[in-house]
Amino acid sequence: MTDAPHATGEASRVAAVLVSGGLDSATVLAIARHEGFICHCLTVDYGQRHRVELESAERVATSLGAASHRTVRVDLRAIGGSALTDGIDVPKDRDPDADDVPVTYVPARNTLLLSLLLGLAEVVGANDLFIGANAVDYSGYPDCRPAFLEGFASLASVATVAGSEHGVRYHVHAPLLHLSKAEIIRRGTALGIDYGLTHSCYDPADDGAACGHCDACALRRRGFEAAGVPDPTRYA
Amino acid sequence: MTDAPHATGEASRVAAVLVSGGLDSATVLAIARHEGFICHCLTVDYGQRHRVELESAERVATSLGAASHRTVRVDLRAIGGSALTDGIDVPKDRDPDADDVPVTYVPARNTLLLSLLLGLAEVVGANDLFIGANAVDYSGYPDCRPAFLEGFASLASVATVAGSEHGVRYHVHAPLLHLSKAEIIRRGTALGIDYGLTHSCYDPADDGAACGHCDACALRRRGFEAAGVPDPTRYA
Repeated sequence: MTDAPHATGEASRVAAVLVSGGLDSATVLAIARHEGFICHCLTVDYGQRHRVELESAERVATSLGAASHRTVRVDLRAIGGSALTDGIDVPKDRDPDADDVPVTYVPARNTLLLSLLLGLAEVVGANDLFIGANAVDYSGYPDCRPAFLEGFASLASVATVAGSEHGVRYHVHAPLLHLSKAEIIRRGTALGIDYGLTHSCYDPADDGAACGHCDACALRRRGFEAAGVPDPTRYA
Repeated sequence: MTDAPHATGEASRVAAVLVSGGLDSATVLAIARHEGFICHCLTVDYGQRHRVELESAERVATSLGAASHRTVRVDLRAIGGSALTDGIDVPKDRDPDADDVPVTYVPARNTLLLSLLLGLAEVVGANDLFIGANAVDYSGYPDCRPAFLEGFASLASVATVAGSEHGVRYHVHAPLLHLSKAEIIRRGTALGIDYGLTHSCYDPADDGAACGHCDACALRRRGFEAAGVPDPTRYA
């Protein structure tokens, strides 16, 4: 795993980038574009409630100059285990800094997301994968930690034809890993992102307005305040 | 990765098992059951053509005493890259022992399958994953090799709450890894499997009959011949 630009020359500077429609992954895409990567974007619809986020993903990819954008649907509801995919209520007004693993945890989510991204990377010829994992705000999620991201990059190099037959080394870039939400927002704002295109809320109203009280809204709202940047979010 | 029975006592002998509806994974499930595991089965429908295989998976899970069976749909057609999910013709009457990677290769397939299985394992409390990977008949697939399977087990232990918070070690069991098709068939027959419930063909007729000429049919047909076991497959 590295955040440094890939060094094998212009021809191979192709990246596969996870884009959720949220603030973090929009910032990741802007960073990858800023570093000169041709970016093929993947949105994974794993049966979550907040479908407005999928529409945001398409807008974000287009506005930031992605070379392509695909949405893959994975219906995780058959597996369950999360408030985002089950009927469990999304928690409101809890302390987003609490150490326990929140019920919005999706089993093996980042393993799954990176697996799908790796499939895309093989098809488009990318050996750089970008994900908006963050170890500051999401310390309760084991699959947002450096050991996991480094482990996935190692696995990719033995899992694929490119890696096992042609010696390609994969890199998992997580440029937000050690940034606070305020730092992410300042970075993205400097890169010209219109965060009004993004969506974070776990429990939006029917018209797409953010609830303002779930973990994701709380972190986002505090992030804009701490960054000293006006919050463009439309709250219910 | 190990094929040995798990040693932490009866209470934790719960396994998550991939069942495709084919001959190999039916044998894996029979082996896991024979070793005393309570088996929760997962079938992944990744948009392949041979939907009759999904019906076979349900029959196999039921007939071999699975504790549960779930089907998760992942629509890989948005990513593409394989004759099983694209419009590319399935190759007929090629040498199934050829060293090149066949066009039926699905990008990052086993990484994806194991990711989904890991999610199920977290939900049902299993730390043993079973997959029908085989290094003899499928040497062209990098993600059927021991290095990949061992890599995934290591990744699982840092990817999950169970692994990172509670010290659980995951095991990826691939009991068919070094068996020929004939050996697999003899093993399954000894365990009482009715292979007439299973389906292997990449390109079945509308009524579910096997084509008899794709790689999967050729390997299966030769396997029954070499095992000296009557082939229950219904060919078109």
